[in-house]
Amino acid sequence: MSMSRHRPLTDSREARDECGVAAVVGHPQAASAVQWALLALQHRGQESAGIASADEQGRVFLHRGMGLVSDVLRAEQLQRLPGPMAVGHVRYSTTGASRLENAQPILSRFRGRFLAIAHNGNLVNASHLRQRLEEGGAIFQTTTDTEVVAHLVARHGGPTEAALVHALGQIAGAWALVVLDPQGVLVARDPLGIRPLSLGRLQTPTGREAWVAASETCALDALGAAWVRDVEPGEVARLDGDGIRTVARLAPAGVPGGTTVARGGLCAFEAIYLARPDSVLFGQSVHGLRKEMGRELAREHPAPGDLVTGVPDSSLSAAMGYAEELGLPYEMGLVRNRYVGRTFIQPAAGQRRLSVNAKLNAVRKVVQGRRVVLVDDSIVRGTTARRIVQLLRDAGAREVHVRIASPPYRFPCHYGVDTARREELIAFGNPVESIRAAIGADSLAFLSLARMRRVLGGPACEACFTGRYPVPVDGAVPKMALEPVAVEEGDAG
Amino acid sequence: MSMSRHRPLTDSREARDECGVAAVVGHPQAASAVQWALLALQHRGQESAGIASADEQGRVFLHRGMGLVSDVLRAEQLQRLPGPMAVGHVRYSTTGASRLENAQPILSRFRGRFLAIAHNGNLVNASHLRQRLEEGGAIFQTTTDTEVVAHLVARHGGPTEAALVHALGQIAGAWALVVLDPQGVLVARDPLGIRPLSLGRLQTPTGREAWVAASETCALDALGAAWVRDVEPGEVARLDGDGIRTVARLAPAGVPGGTTVARGGLCAFEAIYLARPDSVLFGQSVHGLRKEMGRELAREHPAPGDLVTGVPDSSLSAAMGYAEELGLPYEMGLVRNRYVGRTFIQPAAGQRRLSVNAKLNAVRKVVQGRRVVLVDDSIVRGTTARRIVQLLRDAGAREVHVRIASPPYRFPCHYGVDTARREELIAFGNPVESIRAAIGADSLAFLSLARMRRVLGGPACEACFTGRYPVPVDGAVPKMALEPVAVEEGDAG
Amino acid sequence: MSMSRHRPLTDSREARDECGVAAVVGHPQAASAVQWALLALQHRGQESAGIASADEQGRVFLHRGMGLVSDVLRAEQLQRLPGPMAVGHVRYSTTGASRLENAQPILSRFRGRFLAIAHNGNLVNASHLRQRLEEGGAIFQTTTDTEVVAHLVARHGGPTEAALVHALGQIAGAWALVVLDPQGVLVARDPLGIRPLSLGRLQTPTGREAWVAASETCALDALGAAWVRDVEPGEVARLDGDGIRTVARLAPAGVPGGTTVARGGLCAFEAIYLARPDSVLFGQSVHGLRKEMGRELAREHPAPGDLVTGVPDSSLSAAMGYAEELGLPYEMGLVRNRYVGRTFIQPAAGQRRLSVNAKLNAVRKVVQGRRVVLVDDSIVRGTTARRIVQLLRDAGAREVHVRIASPPYRFPCHYGVDTARREELIAFGNPVESIRAAIGADSLAFLSLARMRRVLGGPACEACFTGRYPVPVDGAVPKMALEPVAVEEGDAG
Amino acid sequence: MSMSRHRPLTDSREARDECGVAAVVGHPQAASAVQWALLALQHRGQESAGIASADEQGRVFLHRGMGLVSDVLRAEQLQRLPGPMAVGHVRYSTTGASRLENAQPILSRFRGRFLAIAHNGNLVNASHLRQRLEEGGAIFQTTTDTEVVAHLVARHGGPTEAALVHALGQIAGAWALVVLDPQGVLVARDPLGIRPLSLGRLQTPTGREAWVAASETCALDALGAAWVRDVEPGEVARLDGDGIRTVARLAPAGVPGGTTVARGGLCAFEAIYLARPDSVLFGQSVHGLRKEMGRELAREHPAPGDLVTGVPDSSLSAAMGYAEELGLPYEMGLVRNRYVGRTFIQPAAGQRRLSVNAKLNAVRKVVQGRRVVLVDDSIVRGTTARRIVQLLRDAGAREVHVRIASPPYRFPCHYGVDTARREELIAFGNPVESIRAAIGADSLAFLSLARMRRVLGGPACEACFTGRYPVPVDGAVPKMALEPVAVEEGDAG
Repeated sequence: MSMSRHRPLTDSREARDECGVAAVVGHPQAASAVQWALLALQHRGQESAGIASADEQGRVFLHRGMGLVSDVLRAEQLQRLPGPMAVGHVRYSTTGASRLENAQPILSRFRGRFLAIAHNGNLVNASHLRQRLEEGGAIFQTTTDTEVVAHLVARHGGPTEAALVHALGQIAGAWALVVLDPQGVLVARDPLGIRPLSLGRLQTPTGREAWVAASETCALDALGAAWVRDVEPGEVARLDGDGIRTVARLAPAGVPGGTTVARGGLCAFEAIYLARPDSVLFGQSVHGLRKEMGRELAREHPAPGDLVTGVPDSSLSAAMGYAEELGLPYEMGLVRNRYVGRTFIQPAAGQRRLSVNAKLNAVRKVVQGRRVVLVDDSIVRGTTARRIVQLLRDAGAREVHVRIASPPYRFPCHYGVDTARREELIAFGNPVESIRAAIGADSLAFLSLARMRRVLGGPACEACFTGRYPVPVDGAVPKMALEPVAVEEGDAG
Repeated sequence: MSMSRHRPLTDSREARDECGVAAVVGHPQAASAVQWALLALQHRGQESAGIASADEQGRVFLHRGMGLVSDVLRAEQLQRLPGPMAVGHVRYSTTGASRLENAQPILSRFRGRFLAIAHNGNLVNASHLRQRLEEGGAIFQTTTDTEVVAHLVARHGGPTEAALVHALGQIAGAWALVVLDPQGVLVARDPLGIRPLSLGRLQTPTGREAWVAASETCALDALGAAWVRDVEPGEVARLDGDGIRTVARLAPAGVPGGTTVARGGLCAFEAIYLARPDSVLFGQSVHGLRKEMGRELAREHPAPGDLVTGVPDSSLSAAMGYAEELGLPYEMGLVRNRYVGRTFIQPAAGQRRLSVNAKLNAVRKVVQGRRVVLVDDSIVRGTTARRIVQLLRDAGAREVHVRIASPPYRFPCHYGVDTARREELIAFGNPVESIRAAIGADSLAFLSLARMRRVLGGPACEACFTGRYPVPVDGAVPKMALEPVAVEEGDAG
Repeated sequence: MSMSRHRPLTDSREARDECGVAAVVGHPQAASAVQWALLALQHRGQESAGIASADEQGRVFLHRGMGLVSDVLRAEQLQRLPGPMAVGHVRYSTTGASRLENAQPILSRFRGRFLAIAHNGNLVNASHLRQRLEEGGAIFQTTTDTEVVAHLVARHGGPTEAALVHALGQIAGAWALVVLDPQGVLVARDPLGIRPLSLGRLQTPTGREAWVAASETCALDALGAAWVRDVEPGEVARLDGDGIRTVARLAPAGVPGGTTVARGGLCAFEAIYLARPDSVLFGQSVHGLRKEMGRELAREHPAPGDLVTGVPDSSLSAAMGYAEELGLPYEMGLVRNRYVGRTFIQPAAGQRRLSVNAKLNAVRKVVQGRRVVLVDDSIVRGTTARRIVQLLRDAGAREVHVRIASPPYRFPCHYGVDTARREELIAFGNPVESIRAAIGADSLAFLSLARMRRVLGGPACEACFTGRYPVPVDGAVPKMALEPVAVEEGDAG
Repeated sequence: MSMSRHRPLTDSREARDECGVAAVVGHPQAASAVQWALLALQHRGQESAGIASADEQGRVFLHRGMGLVSDVLRAEQLQRLPGPMAVGHVRYSTTGASRLENAQPILSRFRGRFLAIAHNGNLVNASHLRQRLEEGGAIFQTTTDTEVVAHLVARHGGPTEAALVHALGQIAGAWALVVLDPQGVLVARDPLGIRPLSLGRLQTPTGREAWVAASETCALDALGAAWVRDVEPGEVARLDGDGIRTVARLAPAGVPGGTTVARGGLCAFEAIYLARPDSVLFGQSVHGLRKEMGRELAREHPAPGDLVTGVPDSSLSAAMGYAEELGLPYEMGLVRNRYVGRTFIQPAAGQRRLSVNAKLNAVRKVVQGRRVVLVDDSIVRGTTARRIVQLLRDAGAREVHVRIASPPYRFPCHYGVDTARREELIAFGNPVESIRAAIGADSLAFLSLARMRRVLGGPACEACFTGRYPVPVDGAVPKMALEPVAVEEGDAG
């Protein structure tokens, strides 16, 4: 897929966050454990990182900063984050240093209590709630949804758990929350379970048990924690010294009469692109899901190629599956420079293309004179796909057949993934043939929705493919999206 | 005076801020102008710095950071602070990087408006107000009084000016505020005028007039702005393209029945220690006030010395006056190393005294075999005074006569100056002779309250000398302070 | 292979550098172009980076620093490196900030000339030459071999080209040099061609031709330059506005009577581990060489596995080849966290194993209950191999069969690769069965020397496998190495 | 005086260094002690700092960096500088980060020995020696004179002491050197003693004696060390566990036939401007010397003023003396902002004068309507003097009478002080009346050479006032300078 994870600071898109959260309770060095979890979730957000911890005396500690976990949360900072419970956050956004205000966790104090909230997702009714809160006298110091939740909790007045449940009953959208209060950690997941959140158990150095929550299971593995279960859709649970206890179950919000307007469930795009290949989603390793999508894609759209190559790193599994299914050699036709991207380097005047070559290189000896099948996980805007096709041709590829291991991405996500506005999505309103022409491929095909569903094997949020938003989006749901969509149906294999 | 402005990070005292504020309206590069003003106010706070600016489209921009103005507000940051109006803040506190949350201005958004507040001073009823606000559902993300003001404004609901006036009517204490809203800048000063705030006018490069507010007149000078007048005690004024317009006048808060419990007015300690010598307070240059206090001190307590020396930098003016009055030579008996202090350098094991010698050096050739009159502006805890007396003796001084150009500092400030708790104040409960013995001087004398008043020439807050707090302090006003204090009366010349 | 590229600063091993060099001539922004080349060579050295450039007025400019190319050579620095010719260097070492002295290029001035040298490799007679030079009055400010070359050039006295050729005639070992002088760039490669150095041509933005030299062809690709040829073993060439001109050809040094003591040629380990997969060595892409080694390994040592997995990133190609050859599924059984490693993070007390889990994760869903064939490129000390086998077992692998796509690494490199001392090499003196036991694998096998040779297809330096050092090493050549080595011969397939 | 100590990075003047050196032997934490000494010498150089230390095993350690002592030499670095002996350096130059190469000490290794040299001063025959050395095959990696000395030592071949003495016999100019070798520290001063270097003794925490050398006595004070004596002109001495032992005495170089071409001795400008007021030079405190020059100036050129003010900080002592002598009030008419200068802040477009106002402020209340006598220590280019006169007039001064407490500075220094080229010196070739007009003063007068000599009381280098260079300068001594100079003679009181 073509969505760059390291955008230049000049990128002007409106930010919507894709984040990672983690929490640990019952660990002598909870902040340190959370740091390791965040390190494993770093791919979900590189803009800012933060941890809030609390000790048994009810004191709370917070450190946040712009940058990677390894830059923001050094030994020096961890020493100032004592206590047996902690929550943490990594955040991905398009803006620079001036947005430190938006770093999480967000710590609020009220009535002698504190609440530190870290959040992954997006509220579709945030601006509505915000307006109502502001009319009631609330002030906002950030532009995050998280602050909205904090206000809703504070307004309630009762005990924290009840107040949080009440607050979550008012919000609509997708969220995975970890919340630190003086009693421990609360975790919550939206009623449809769009954003992931898993629970685990860890043996601490002192032989006791600690409890862990994290956006992906790879963070549990990084801690040496055993996966226990996922937080269920709509579940609010308490993690403390006694383990995990369900506090409440939320019904899907914004679904009057119980009629689900569209298929809901865990975000399909997590499986396709966002999650780390070693995490478990839909009961499978993400690598396994992607490889199987590659196999299905091969069955659906075999390509007349001499070799198969993937775009590192997210589409390698799909490319392997594609190659295996067709018995084609799987080759490393593209190599990524791991050192480019973190810091934005200004290309010398007149040499903009240098920066493309510096990040990805086509291996001439592999592709020269060959018919290359390029497997990618998705196409969002098409700009990167076009560049890669060109790279392969420049390196001598005779033909380039592009196969995408997901359906056309045609609708913006409103649930926490920052992609692009609808008019920027190359698949929005454009037939496959137009896209093929735009990216300069010899052929192009997408995995059908039906086959993707077969691989995932359970309910999933597919709004970016179908436009059927399972949680109604304020004024954002296009009419068209609620009707059968020709292109998409045609995809069904 | 001996209060170090650069405390090590390990300093454990409870922080109370001494800060500087500035605002500019009608300037093509308002943030840049505010930066120059903050640079001139840097002595009022070196912990953090920040600027909020707004443009004519109603957009607001904010940058804050830990460190000096020259570190936090570089050209790069200023470029991201466009617009013709801006407010800024420098803050002084004892804590480190983890307190970025408390940096100012504090920007809040509500009902489509924004408000960026920068504040110098201290509210004596902050915790009371905070509790009330929290009961009403407010959440606090900082521990600053400024956030209390922001909440009070937001709760009011009406237009910003009216809401601000209403909010200021509820707070008690000492404050100088600059507030940025979409219409321009609002400035305000507490009803007794304890904290200073001056107004000026500046010719911009484009030939138009800009309006400036700053904690001290030296900041106006730094901008090349002409002093217009001070914000009056209790005045709330609007600065915009049309100039300065008084919006409201607040009556002294917490003064039931109009009976003033104690003398109130501009903080005497600003004149004695806090302000820069080139600023104007009480209608005089601070240097002039200090020199005159030195002269009065000489008349009141002449010392049998061969030469007069001051502690750089804040007591030099007083020492000059003292020397001139008695016709004694004024010498540089102590030299300060300008490069020590900013960064805390760990003394090598067993060599703690190195750090004292590194910061201040006694000039042996000047003091050896001589009777030295050491003039200091104040004594707070006495630790530094004791060290300096010892430094002079080690350098060969035959006698050291200490003269303090202010009355004994016996009561903690509750109006925005961080000194110490009462039991740490060496003059609290100790007669002059005990203090003399404690600091090891051959003789010691303080300027009397009466003579200090004569120099200042107008009403001033003298609470730190008398314990008579002009604004009642919640549970903090000692009974004793309301009665005649023996030591103090004895001081009257 | 298990050799970590990101060692903690506490690593106590004696440093020996593995570096990358690049040069550009005839480019309007030569330093910028060299920076892009260095970025592509960053995998060869992450400790320090530097560029020297020169303009047509004979002025020379230098910037070096500790850290990555993107940190050291920012736009600001590049602006201070004007001129149409430049040389650059990235360096890999085990020590920290205090070794800035050793960063390259090393700039020396003498007789009105200047010489900036960047060097990849190691001189085996450096200490001997250094002693001779010091006896002649030379002083050394670094501990690099590069400074030895600079001294030898300066001593000669004649024109730079002649002096360089003379100097190179005195040194023995492995080297790839790029040298900047007022006339342009000189490039040189050791007589056996142990270290790689390639030449390319680039169309500049102004339409003229620029000439490029770089350690690997991937750096040419990053610049959009076309490969022209490799610098030949023993060749000294001049790059200037007129193109490439051979200046001299050096005979193999230290080979009395022309009797080659051992096979010599390009370092086999470059192909096995060091080079980027998209570079071209031995006339093939490195990826292709590695995949073919994996195929040969499969033919020689098929394993009874259910799936094949590689250790990311360097052994993935070999694993692909192995899987393809045997028709086994190639899976992503191990996932690397790209964000761990750059900064050394202190594990919390008692949780040392966290740091292993954080860097590499075994994918439970992939390996659980399966017989895993783990293909790695090499084993140096065996510690990482042991940890990975354990990781796989912890994740539920039923059997772990390790296959190494190179012969046992039994002898230290003296030609510029920092591996370990002989007694640290697990394959030194240990039979395969002992190694297998030590790493805890169910079976273990290595590619034989004969099959590796077949894949490389040309003369190569194999000293690390055979102990037959093609350039005699001062007092470092073990007797044993010159005789047939039992284990090795047994390897031949 | 007008020589800014904090020049912007864009300053284009040719750099000549003014530096500070320090050495400690016999101290358990010698590097830490040297750091404290360097901190006290920070005013002599803010561009770079460095320390080399050695332990009893003959190992040597070095750390250097760009920036202040407190930035470069933190606890972390000091820990890596073990051993009982160390030398250090602070350097002042006009260029930025790219000149790290020139930071000192310069460490060289030869014949199994090492030599770390730190140097304050300037060699007048450096380019000649350098050329000769280069012809002999030496290479230079820096542009410092220090490297020349290192080469000369290395060429000699004998024991270090003899080699150093031999090397110093070849160089001409002004120097104060501290040299670390495996046996301890060597110190040396040029035959005329132009640059200062003092020796002291320190009781270490363990009760033993340590020996200290430093450019100024204030550094001894900072360490709590007692002054023992100055290094004598031409003396080379060894400091080790046994104390101080003179190794050799050098005769004035470049003085054929013993005829001294001009008065020589300690640099008069050290007393006038360079040294810290608490240091001892010419047997007096620098403050005392300056105050006495102010008194002499008052006697020679009384001014019709209402008050006297000085330019902070270097001219305050002279202003005090001037005021006392005439019985005029000494006032703080100008205040310096201590926070401006370290970092160069770009003035907003069209507001260049802001930066002047920000650095120095005239106190309106002090100077308005008054006749101000402005005492400065020197005038170099006249630009700052002109700005200050203007500042005072803008603040309402009725008249401004400038009195300079030194003779006109008419000739460039060739002995280690970076001032300006001759044509930039406002006093070169211009009569006093022209200078007065140029700076806009109502009157101007300089202290005469005769009176300055009377105050200093001993032989001094006065080349900058007379043009009579005591050490002949290669092609730099203007004919005119050797003849009587009208203006100067007229100055004599």
